Amino acid sequence: MDSTDDSKKGLLIVISGSSGVGKGSILKKVLGRRKNLKLSVSYTTRKPREGEVESKDYHFLDESEFLEIASKGEMLEYAKYCGNYYGTPLKALNEELNKGNNVILEIEVQGGEQVINKVEDVVSIFVLPPSLKELAKRLSKRALDSEEVISKRIAKSIQEINLSKRYKYVVINEYIDECASQILKIIDAETLKFPRMKSKIEEILKDE
Amino acid sequence: MDSTDDSKKGLLIVISGSSGVGKGSILKKVLGRRKNLKLSVSYTTRKPREGEVESKDYHFLDESEFLEIASKGEMLEYAKYCGNYYGTPLKALNEELNKGNNVILEIEVQGGEQVINKVEDVVSIFVLPPSLKELAKRLSKRALDSEEVISKRIAKSIQEINLSKRYKYVVINEYIDECASQILKIIDAETLKFPRMKSKIEEILKDE
Repeated sequence: MDSTDDSKKGLLIVISGSSGVGKGSILKKVLGRRKNLKLSVSYTTRKPREGEVESKDYHFLDESEFLEIASKGEMLEYAKYCGNYYGTPLKALNEELNKGNNVILEIEVQGGEQVINKVEDVVSIFVLPPSLKELAKRLSKRALDSEEVISKRIAKSIQEINLSKRYKYVVINEYIDECASQILKIIDAETLKFPRMKSKIEEILKDE
Repeated sequence: MDSTDDSKKGLLIVISGSSGVGKGSILKKVLGRRKNLKLSVSYTTRKPREGEVESKDYHFLDESEFLEIASKGEMLEYAKYCGNYYGTPLKALNEELNKGNNVILEIEVQGGEQVINKVEDVVSIFVLPPSLKELAKRLSKRALDSEEVISKRIAKSIQEINLSKRYKYVVINEYIDECASQILKIIDAETLKFPRMKSKIEEILKDE
């Protein structure tokens, strides 16, 4: 991360949560609602799913390209998840933050932990399902996976939920609109913390 | 404060700000909007102003009564401000917090600092005027004080604003509805922090 401590710099927001909890749909609702809010586009070695667009959904790379970029230190974090690599481009991220934009990283818990350890004032949010039963139902509905894969994903989810204690905030995706609005409240509240308001306070005191 | 660490316990919220910034009007807007949100009623040795009601606006005491209660350790904080004592009743406060209610203390910065030093997870919010000019205008409009008193209050405000760095959050009261909504967002976001969500997470993990 950049070392410049500027109260005008944007917030870095990490959003993680159980696979199938609905992070993608929540983020669609969140992103349209604040104009200075951007989504970081990750590198991945996963093959594109139908409808996914290069540079919009992901930067799709093969493994050797991915590992070269990672080894040069050009990723904030990277991790292997379900057999594929995922990573966050560092330069693009810093550019957005320095413009004053708040940037959301949607990443799994392994990557989330790396960011939480590296970036002191990161706004980390963990999204939970209302229940494990409901999570199983949502995974079945997506019908992307077999029943065996779904069972494995639920087991993995339980492990992941146990890591939610590393996150600053926890939201429950029972109703998607409410969940999106809770995430927006967290972001708005974080921008009102003293260090981010410093330059405004100085302006007020100058204006006599 | 109580030592019981319970994720179901309410939030303690301290709101301070320059005299004349409009804290009273903001709080009226905030209090009606969440059902588990209460206002702590302070002790004071100040004489009641017109329309002020005992036990609703303040507990009005004479100086010897006030100092006796304070010396017994039955106030969370107390301070002398503009020649009068003000203090926060400890027992009533703990009762509300233990019921799970979020409690707002509207106190000046001397008392605010005491609470910030004593209560680790206090949600402290400082309310600023949009400018010192605007603050002077608001103080003149109230017409409670002479011009000399107003000048003194502005000087005091500048001192107080310099203490806003001790507070977690800073809001600017330019538009009262926006300011009230920012305070509500802060309170809502604080209830989504991990320690307060712990019991809900445990419920989700149990429900298999």
